[in-house]
Amino acid sequence: MRPSIVLFGDSITEESFGEGGWGAHLANHYSRSADVVLRGYSGYNTRWASLVAGRAFSAIPASAAAVAAVTVFFGANDASLPDRSSAFQHVPLPEYRVNLRAICALLRARWPSAAVILITPPPVDERARVRLGHPRNGDASGLPERTNEAAGRYARACLEVAAERGLRAIDVWSRMQEFPGWETAFLRDGLHLTPTGNRLLFEEVVFALRDANLSLEALPADLPLCSDIDPNDAVNCFEED
Amino acid sequence: MRPSIVLFGDSITEESFGEGGWGAHLANHYSRSADVVLRGYSGYNTRWASLVAGRAFSAIPASAAAVAAVTVFFGANDASLPDRSSAFQHVPLPEYRVNLRAICALLRARWPSAAVILITPPPVDERARVRLGHPRNGDASGLPERTNEAAGRYARACLEVAAERGLRAIDVWSRMQEFPGWETAFLRDGLHLTPTGNRLLFEEVVFALRDANLSLEALPADLPLCSDIDPNDAVNCFEED
Repeated sequence: MRPSIVLFGDSITEESFGEGGWGAHLANHYSRSADVVLRGYSGYNTRWASLVAGRAFSAIPASAAAVAAVTVFFGANDASLPDRSSAFQHVPLPEYRVNLRAICALLRARWPSAAVILITPPPVDERARVRLGHPRNGDASGLPERTNEAAGRYARACLEVAAERGLRAIDVWSRMQEFPGWETAFLRDGLHLTPTGNRLLFEEVVFALRDANLSLEALPADLPLCSDIDPNDAVNCFEED
Repeated sequence: MRPSIVLFGDSITEESFGEGGWGAHLANHYSRSADVVLRGYSGYNTRWASLVAGRAFSAIPASAAAVAAVTVFFGANDASLPDRSSAFQHVPLPEYRVNLRAICALLRARWPSAAVILITPPPVDERARVRLGHPRNGDASGLPERTNEAAGRYARACLEVAAERGLRAIDVWSRMQEFPGWETAFLRDGLHLTPTGNRLLFEEVVFALRDANLSLEALPADLPLCSDIDPNDAVNCFEED
């Protein structure tokens, strides 16, 4: 039975099947072993995500074996500043923790054996947010609606919730900032990912999945590979076990 | 309930989530309205596909509403010449028709309301097959393992089965050859698709899905769009109907 890997998150998840996107890379990587299921909701914070999570997953079978892993990738919108142009997306830090825990509890109840992987919000390039973003991203004072410092606090809270619950986490906020020029190498508008940023995230997710014993080598291939088919007795290769 | 669009086919389907692939384009296009489910089996012909179809679909819910559409894209391997290096993949033309009909019958039984879309094999650039392909693609005589003429016969048979069953079809064999330079514009090794070829196929599939009343406009969005959320009363937008 081919399992699913569910991607639950905000716009950085919703657009992950665009050109060079991390979701498309995953679907290609697991093309013969797992289904990559997109549940990305642009603009959503954890408050809204925790309200709708049950409905978001309703089309995915609830059987324990159906889902092998879920990535939970929220916080970029929660971390919008409460007194700037994206204030309506802001969620206070204590509530962000509560909401993340609620999402994790729902996932554990629905798919007890699934590997849940929390992903921190990415870093923010504030100058790009003012310069390139949506008109509402800069207010009249020329101040950005998100700061890297605020995103960092939500990233640390995400890692703490993961540690507290014994879950895997990807600290994309820190990981990206290890590279000089991360602002433009990984982010196309100070927040969303370039193809290179998508590639970094894809590799981090593959690494986390491997750690959860969900490597390509560990998962059975869906039906015989062409290279394993005996040219002289092909049909016999398709007999049921 | 978010429906699925299932892509059932050979390597041109299996690799459709690669860079610029038609499957990834579809998943991105329907990111908030449908799941694109990959069932691509490199090297498979309709004989093997019809044997395994039930198993290939076993992880996809059998409820009628679960699947809105299925693309069936085989024939490129069936059309391998019976006396060349890929002979073990060859399926005689009359059997190709029988197998395609069996696959369509299985789909109709499992998901009676799903739009089944048959896709013909693509054209073949024989010179590229000999020059660029797998070592087994050319035999010692320098002859290709597939010809465009043979692929065309399977393409016509595919269209006839679609017409006979009242199903939609995409004649990618003819469509590509309408363009001068199709051999390299659309095919990267004389058989598999370039990003431009993937784009053409993506657009043809979107057109067929629109014809089946599965346009982006016709499908409900999965949960409220951020632009529809009232900034002053956001949580209220997530109340269940």
